[in-house]
Amino acid sequence: MALIVQKFGGTSVKDAPSIARVAGIVAETYSEGNDVIVVVSAQGDTTDDLIAKANEINPNHSRREHDMLVSAGEQISISLLAMALEKIGLPVVSLLGWQAGFTTNSSYTAARIKKINKERLQNELDSHKIVVVAGFQGINKYDDITTLGRGGSDTSAVALAAALHADRCQIFTDVTGVFTADPRKVKGAVKLSEITYDEMLELASCGAQVLNNRSVEMAKKYNVELEVLSSIEREPGTIVKEATKMEKMLIRGVAKDNDVARISVLRLPDSPGIAFKLFSKLAYRKVNVDIILQSVGRDGTKDITFTVPRGDDQLARDAVFEAFPDLTEDNFIVDTNVSKVSIVGAGMETHPGTASQMFEALFDAGINIQMISTSEIKISVLVDQGDADKAISAIHDSFFPED
Amino acid sequence: MALIVQKFGGTSVKDAPSIARVAGIVAETYSEGNDVIVVVSAQGDTTDDLIAKANEINPNHSRREHDMLVSAGEQISISLLAMALEKIGLPVVSLLGWQAGFTTNSSYTAARIKKINKERLQNELDSHKIVVVAGFQGINKYDDITTLGRGGSDTSAVALAAALHADRCQIFTDVTGVFTADPRKVKGAVKLSEITYDEMLELASCGAQVLNNRSVEMAKKYNVELEVLSSIEREPGTIVKEATKMEKMLIRGVAKDNDVARISVLRLPDSPGIAFKLFSKLAYRKVNVDIILQSVGRDGTKDITFTVPRGDDQLARDAVFEAFPDLTEDNFIVDTNVSKVSIVGAGMETHPGTASQMFEALFDAGINIQMISTSEIKISVLVDQGDADKAISAIHDSFFPED
Repeated sequence: MALIVQKFGGTSVKDAPSIARVAGIVAETYSEGNDVIVVVSAQGDTTDDLIAKANEINPNHSRREHDMLVSAGEQISISLLAMALEKIGLPVVSLLGWQAGFTTNSSYTAARIKKINKERLQNELDSHKIVVVAGFQGINKYDDITTLGRGGSDTSAVALAAALHADRCQIFTDVTGVFTADPRKVKGAVKLSEITYDEMLELASCGAQVLNNRSVEMAKKYNVELEVLSSIEREPGTIVKEATKMEKMLIRGVAKDNDVARISVLRLPDSPGIAFKLFSKLAYRKVNVDIILQSVGRDGTKDITFTVPRGDDQLARDAVFEAFPDLTEDNFIVDTNVSKVSIVGAGMETHPGTASQMFEALFDAGINIQMISTSEIKISVLVDQGDADKAISAIHDSFFPED
Repeated sequence: MALIVQKFGGTSVKDAPSIARVAGIVAETYSEGNDVIVVVSAQGDTTDDLIAKANEINPNHSRREHDMLVSAGEQISISLLAMALEKIGLPVVSLLGWQAGFTTNSSYTAARIKKINKERLQNELDSHKIVVVAGFQGINKYDDITTLGRGGSDTSAVALAAALHADRCQIFTDVTGVFTADPRKVKGAVKLSEITYDEMLELASCGAQVLNNRSVEMAKKYNVELEVLSSIEREPGTIVKEATKMEKMLIRGVAKDNDVARISVLRLPDSPGIAFKLFSKLAYRKVNVDIILQSVGRDGTKDITFTVPRGDDQLARDAVFEAFPDLTEDNFIVDTNVSKVSIVGAGMETHPGTASQMFEALFDAGINIQMISTSEIKISVLVDQGDADKAISAIHDSFFPED
């Protein structure tokens, strides 16, 4: 007998038929002899609807009352799912965040879990009940309700799995797993049967948003085995687990990220402290800089080029002109017509030819590389946005030749 | 400085403009230097909508999950009202039933309040916050959410006022107070400035449903001064308080109750135990019998006539035929075309002419009295339903002559 934590997002519980389907999945797992904890998010658009109500009344409402309001959403979904399980005749109890023992710090709307008091959960499991837990929420030391922020239900599920030493934490989504590339774009994309935590994290930072990063980090820290799978199509998903437990693949996937702007600052004086001046101003504005390229010109000047999330281009502009008040407009260039294409794989650490294989594939496809960035298990290139899909197919064909 | 508890029902907080109006009332009370606790129900149709969702999934859901579900309604309304008060710039905190210290027994959907732990409430009041409390809900000893049943928010408000020794508990409704008769029906109806708990209870049992009876009983028990008033029209309402603190009026009001069926059982044997046989069967079925009339016939038989709530006529029929299996259909008569018209007033205890004045008014109006029932502070008559409004006007004109 195993303990399985299953997490279903808002789309999976959006209406009565969806809830009935989820109840069927849970019932199947339970009837196989497992203990089951189910974590659910608020139904469909409930959270957005509640926030719209709040903003109509007072757009500057406090974050404490915000959390009081939106946490009602999971309260509705857990009780409805419990009722659906009661209909099947299964023993079940729904628990709010505080009833399930989630204590957090007091950062309303973005709280961090401090501890899970397992007593009640363990008692309910001991009496063979399916426990349906409200994701995304907890209470702080004042007994006030807090929420965990974006993707919080994934974090709730992983935290429960870690605290109770669950055998597996299944995250049900609208895809059947993690693919070598976006299957809607790349014909030969295949589903991975497994992937390491680090690869998953790198893929997410490269635009393949399947799992919330915070939950993957927590799973890695507490060694919780995750499975990403679909609540619609019933087939095995992708297991996310420790690297030591699986065979290294050269590369695990190819991903594209369009949320990039490339910023070039030209003809800066070639003197010490220039880069520090620029990047400290960017850091102060919390602009997340990704790839950086610095080239020394022949006339005693240098150019600095870097990428930022596309929505931060104005903040970046402010930072640049604060750092260099004398900069002229023709020496400042923003290009939002770019994409970052990345390959991720733990195997490349020990396989020096990976980068050149990627660059060759791009050269053969006639695609110009604007910038390059690498980590131990990732290589990213910046290309023209119009070339991105062609770049992904070319790279994917090279690393995953069709049989 | 006084402590005022204000209760607003679901209609009063049904949308953003309504919530803003309620916030204005609360702000006015607070700015006059009072401590204010506000109790609110769920918005408009929220509770009904949630129950409809539940019934779509599983009409036979447990009462525990029912309470988990519907209590989300007040969670939404308290946080929205708190946000509206934040907008005005007032210090405010919303509290769920359990945060406000409401502990109840475990009768889900119809729980009774056992105790209010005042610590948090008192702390919030001490820091000069307006406290917005979710009505209708509490927790039991298992830390599970319970609800108090119909009219539960009135009960929550009165219980808070009692526990914290509030100076007044204001119940905001859609009427401006308690009237001598239904003002939509009787031209000369006037609003009462005050009324005793007992008179209020009798009026309610006579069909004038302004306040939930359980909350009036609790107010009487703990001597909480109530005020019934309108959240739309800002004028003083009707004070409900101890009899000793006010002048006795001969009669306080005239009320009509159409929820009555008159049942006659004819030609029963005139032997001992007949009435017991009948009424024990009715009691077993929890049928609430109001007026009873027994007449001895000349042929060694007797007739028993009694009234029951109209919806219970089938249950009453079952009870009668179980008690008297040999009864023939022509000796069993149900009349649902009747109304009960009542006058209520603590003054009639010491004023023997009250009943005859009522009967004279009905005689002058040509109305036939079918049955009569009296208590210390109430006289009720059963009349043909078509005569009820005329009866009320005639009685009202007699006791409240227009100036």
